[in-house]
Amino acid sequence: MYELGVVYRNIARADSRVADGLGALGSATVHEAMGRTGLLKPYMRPIYSGAHAWGTAVTVLLHPGDNWMMHVAAEQIQPGDVVVAAVTAECTDGYFGDLLATSFQARGARALIIDAGVRDVSVLQEMGFPVWSRAISAKGTIKSTLGSVNIPVVCAGELVSPGDVVVADQDGVAVVPAAKALETLEKASAREANEAAKRATLASGVLGLDMYKMREPLKALGLRYVD
Amino acid sequence: MYELGVVYRNIARADSRVADGLGALGSATVHEAMGRTGLLKPYMRPIYSGAHAWGTAVTVLLHPGDNWMMHVAAEQIQPGDVVVAAVTAECTDGYFGDLLATSFQARGARALIIDAGVRDVSVLQEMGFPVWSRAISAKGTIKSTLGSVNIPVVCAGELVSPGDVVVADQDGVAVVPAAKALETLEKASAREANEAAKRATLASGVLGLDMYKMREPLKALGLRYVD
Amino acid sequence: MYELGVVYRNIARADSRVADGLGALGSATVHEAMGRTGLLKPYMRPIYSGAHAWGTAVTVLLHPGDNWMMHVAAEQIQPGDVVVAAVTAECTDGYFGDLLATSFQARGARALIIDAGVRDVSVLQEMGFPVWSRAISAKGTIKSTLGSVNIPVVCAGELVSPGDVVVADQDGVAVVPAAKALETLEKASAREANEAAKRATLASGVLGLDMYKMREPLKALGLRYVD
Amino acid sequence: MYELGVVYRNIARADSRVADGLGALGSATVHEAMGRTGLLKPYMRPIYSGAHAWGTAVTVLLHPGDNWMMHVAAEQIQPGDVVVAAVTAECTDGYFGDLLATSFQARGARALIIDAGVRDVSVLQEMGFPVWSRAISAKGTIKSTLGSVNIPVVCAGELVSPGDVVVADQDGVAVVPAAKALETLEKASAREANEAAKRATLASGVLGLDMYKMREPLKALGLRYVD
Amino acid sequence: MYELGVVYRNIARADSRVADGLGALGSATVHEAMGRTGLLKPYMRPIYSGAHAWGTAVTVLLHPGDNWMMHVAAEQIQPGDVVVAAVTAECTDGYFGDLLATSFQARGARALIIDAGVRDVSVLQEMGFPVWSRAISAKGTIKSTLGSVNIPVVCAGELVSPGDVVVADQDGVAVVPAAKALETLEKASAREANEAAKRATLASGVLGLDMYKMREPLKALGLRYVD
Amino acid sequence: MYELGVVYRNIARADSRVADGLGALGSATVHEAMGRTGLLKPYMRPIYSGAHAWGTAVTVLLHPGDNWMMHVAAEQIQPGDVVVAAVTAECTDGYFGDLLATSFQARGARALIIDAGVRDVSVLQEMGFPVWSRAISAKGTIKSTLGSVNIPVVCAGELVSPGDVVVADQDGVAVVPAAKALETLEKASAREANEAAKRATLASGVLGLDMYKMREPLKALGLRYVD
Repeated sequence: MYELGVVYRNIARADSRVADGLGALGSATVHEAMGRTGLLKPYMRPIYSGAHAWGTAVTVLLHPGDNWMMHVAAEQIQPGDVVVAAVTAECTDGYFGDLLATSFQARGARALIIDAGVRDVSVLQEMGFPVWSRAISAKGTIKSTLGSVNIPVVCAGELVSPGDVVVADQDGVAVVPAAKALETLEKASAREANEAAKRATLASGVLGLDMYKMREPLKALGLRYVD
Repeated sequence: MYELGVVYRNIARADSRVADGLGALGSATVHEAMGRTGLLKPYMRPIYSGAHAWGTAVTVLLHPGDNWMMHVAAEQIQPGDVVVAAVTAECTDGYFGDLLATSFQARGARALIIDAGVRDVSVLQEMGFPVWSRAISAKGTIKSTLGSVNIPVVCAGELVSPGDVVVADQDGVAVVPAAKALETLEKASAREANEAAKRATLASGVLGLDMYKMREPLKALGLRYVD
Repeated sequence: MYELGVVYRNIARADSRVADGLGALGSATVHEAMGRTGLLKPYMRPIYSGAHAWGTAVTVLLHPGDNWMMHVAAEQIQPGDVVVAAVTAECTDGYFGDLLATSFQARGARALIIDAGVRDVSVLQEMGFPVWSRAISAKGTIKSTLGSVNIPVVCAGELVSPGDVVVADQDGVAVVPAAKALETLEKASAREANEAAKRATLASGVLGLDMYKMREPLKALGLRYVD
Repeated sequence: MYELGVVYRNIARADSRVADGLGALGSATVHEAMGRTGLLKPYMRPIYSGAHAWGTAVTVLLHPGDNWMMHVAAEQIQPGDVVVAAVTAECTDGYFGDLLATSFQARGARALIIDAGVRDVSVLQEMGFPVWSRAISAKGTIKSTLGSVNIPVVCAGELVSPGDVVVADQDGVAVVPAAKALETLEKASAREANEAAKRATLASGVLGLDMYKMREPLKALGLRYVD
Repeated sequence: MYELGVVYRNIARADSRVADGLGALGSATVHEAMGRTGLLKPYMRPIYSGAHAWGTAVTVLLHPGDNWMMHVAAEQIQPGDVVVAAVTAECTDGYFGDLLATSFQARGARALIIDAGVRDVSVLQEMGFPVWSRAISAKGTIKSTLGSVNIPVVCAGELVSPGDVVVADQDGVAVVPAAKALETLEKASAREANEAAKRATLASGVLGLDMYKMREPLKALGLRYVD
Repeated sequence: MYELGVVYRNIARADSRVADGLGALGSATVHEAMGRTGLLKPYMRPIYSGAHAWGTAVTVLLHPGDNWMMHVAAEQIQPGDVVVAAVTAECTDGYFGDLLATSFQARGARALIIDAGVRDVSVLQEMGFPVWSRAISAKGTIKSTLGSVNIPVVCAGELVSPGDVVVADQDGVAVVPAAKALETLEKASAREANEAAKRATLASGVLGLDMYKMREPLKALGLRYVD
């Protein structure tokens, strides 16, 4: 159940340096640090190759085929934000194009995450405004009904509250609650710390079986080799 | 992001009489009373025709292909509950069959809502234990990893908190936050009140165009008739 | 491209006796008689088992999440009609429920074919008002934008013009242009005529290989048997 | 890669009593006894409620939109067989209807498993000839190209060899290699043996947590309870 | 229902200068100018990034897994045409590869729009022959059955008549009836005219809320702001 | 049914020169040479544009959400191998990332074909390690259950045995049994031989209708031209 027809103006954004730290680590590492949770569904894909963005969430709830609240959301954007848009039913219409992107970018938004479609994707790529969406569609929308801005929303299967950290890259989109952002950054950084060493070891030809000491537990479970 | 490895034993359930009232009205009317929100995705379907159930939510978070926490959830069930199960990734495996259903039913559960698969559906129908699921699958699961019980979960696109009212029928599944249950019941009942009169009017051949006084607004928008 | 905001009141319906003849033959036979064309996509399924309906098409074009034109369409229904509803984008919302069904039935409609969702399906089954749809969903719709009634529409991949014959059963939905209805009935009847004899032959254990004289052409193509 | 244009007449069928034993246990139990393998994808669904069938596989490989080899397969059917049909590409066309079903039934076939569509499903239900398929579609097929009969095929993601045991019910379809049928029956029977006792225990209100002694391992993994 | 086995040689193509004008405006703008109609389903995607093409439609109707009519269509191509291919059932096979593309290109075709699959996509990209399709697949087809060329077809949910203007880009595919092409160009051009001014305004930081004067109607509907 | 918990160390790999020959011809030509069989489903897509790889198969069977056996498989890789990974149920989790890719690459693997998801795709592209998968997903996996290495597996609908030749490019993935590799190479090469001549003919404007002498058979079937 959603609260409709309301715009929350004052939201508690996660610290931007923490968001930057999480963004640099990427969605997979951040997701692991949250106990393998916090991911949007994998149908959410970037509209162009190489897109990578992060920031604090401004959320917007939309109705099917109606993008009116995107304009209301634009006013609530602050530099460093990522807009996260949910829809009350499954919809692939093109809610967002170059004009809205120009406005979002002028307000300082870094990206859009939308559980629906977008259009003008060639122009969006030229502008360097990345979008993660479930579809690309030229289908236009109307401006008729009220949703809300900056309420907690479920976007592509994940709860997103205003101010949460969003990390989006080629692997998908992860969301970190603002209150857990610092703790998650610490865990994710620790996880990342010894990756370089592991990579070097594996690159030298050492097997994960040995590096991770997996042979014993595999044998204990009954794995057998046949020549 | 989910809190993992925890079971909340004391949850605030919505009033059972309110739940009963909402259940009798059905998912469509309840959803309308919440401003056309509160529905799980329509891929959630009953495993047999005629199923209709309602109650207060006991929630469980599962990992893909792992049903261990269903046994942990069973202990938290009280008579009148509906178990709502979410999974951390898309999965169609058969998490639930006749043995778990026997246990759930013995504890007083009225139904299961699961964003995954179930099996033994013939027996479940004989037992009169309804399930709404995204799939039916004989695929078995393991018991290896910890999820949680009675934390807020996103199930089929909708946030469900423990104690919420769940209304499930042939049209789908609606969820009402416990704190909004009474207010929603009042709105839904008001909506229902004049349905019988409307139905009689329409059955007599009067058109919705006239009963709802739509001709003027349609004309104002430019609708034209061609003979 | 669709003509929007228009209602055609005078449409040329196919002869009702021809429609009855085609309806009795079923969607598969009718489709074969049209050269294996004329079918809606197989995702269109009846909302209850055993549904079988036919009649002449009243068409309606809808926008996503907006069912206003269904009320406009109701007025154009004559006894023996089947309403065929298309949407300008993919949508699973519940456009139609028991009140509209009451109105449609009062006007003499026999069924609804809709490339979207419906709700109140338990009541629809009790009323004996069959629907073929792409989804069942409690999600409600708004009344905001103009579509059209009785223009040619594309429904589930098939062009349907007002007055065409619609034949819907457990196998799917076939559409016959009014101008081709009689010719199609003749072809379909001829096709049906010797089905009983064929069935008896096959039931006696004679193989299709022999009844249809397939052994020679199969051998000519190189089919070989290995003992 | 498939061998095309060949019909193997002499196949080694699994023992019919073993097939009957496996059939009675159902797809879920049989699948568990094979180490949780041997299932077709869950998109394979029975065309009518209550269908349950088993037998030895006669396999057929088809091309998209071409059902010619079904007639060739008919001749290879022996009483107690289940026909398993695979297609060389994804296809939902209606390859099979009442005439072929009459012929299959006359030859002693008990069911059809087809990774494509079927039609005449009302008549198939009246005849009591069950089908598990990926689709129901009135779309007809042609008779133009050679496939094969009784070669190993991949049907809905599972390798099926001629003579294998097929067990199909409301939960899905399991396939047991002929050479493993007896061993699988023994394991599955053992698994089934103490189900009744378990069910009675759970029905009495004893929890799976206690019956399966799960409390210790869950605690060891760190599961904690919050009041 | 389709007319089968026929090739219409003389078709009335839309004016090429009008087609060029529409093509330059892009699918989204053209679709808006048609009252938000005229789009193929969004599952139709270009096989390589950056593809943009337009022209007049030569249509072809194909059967599943059979590309014979593509060769018949090739002869009807004139410079400036775009081939639009529909199939009588859902199919993802690779109907079109580098040889057909060489032939189409030699005849002056600019692109292919096909509601099925294509292959040799690396070579097609090198050749600069763009395709919008529902799939990429190496699966080959046969040459066995008659479809038609230059009849009206339904492609990806949209009616396309021979001679219509087709506009395809990264956002999707729009189709304009030849008789409406000039009128649509005028409307679309008018729509485009003040886009540059709007973009500059939004880029300066002015909000759509103010530029479009949305604050009043939003307030009238009850939108409220919470600090 | 799969043999679980076993690793076959000595597999008969197809000759590497034959694999190289097949790889150079591409998946479409190889598939045609196998009688239009041998393809994985078209949902298997390369994670980056331009990927093209071939080699001999090392197979691995995985459980849903569990990538433990990937480490076991790494040890069995020899230079020139392509790892083919199947899962016992549908799953989109990210089984494979940059660390495993480093290890696979160090062992001489050329590519991964996986009927599930992968992550770290930006790094994989930088490394030049191509993957064909059904999904891209940041979702992590566990290491809990035994699958097998170098048993025959069904991957994306196709049977793959260890040592088979795998050919993967932009059009999809083809698999050639080791015992048929040389014969298939000969057929595929013959097929390819006159492609250049055909392409030149078509490029000169000669129609396929004439080059393939199709006018007579089309006329015989009844194709008619209308001016």
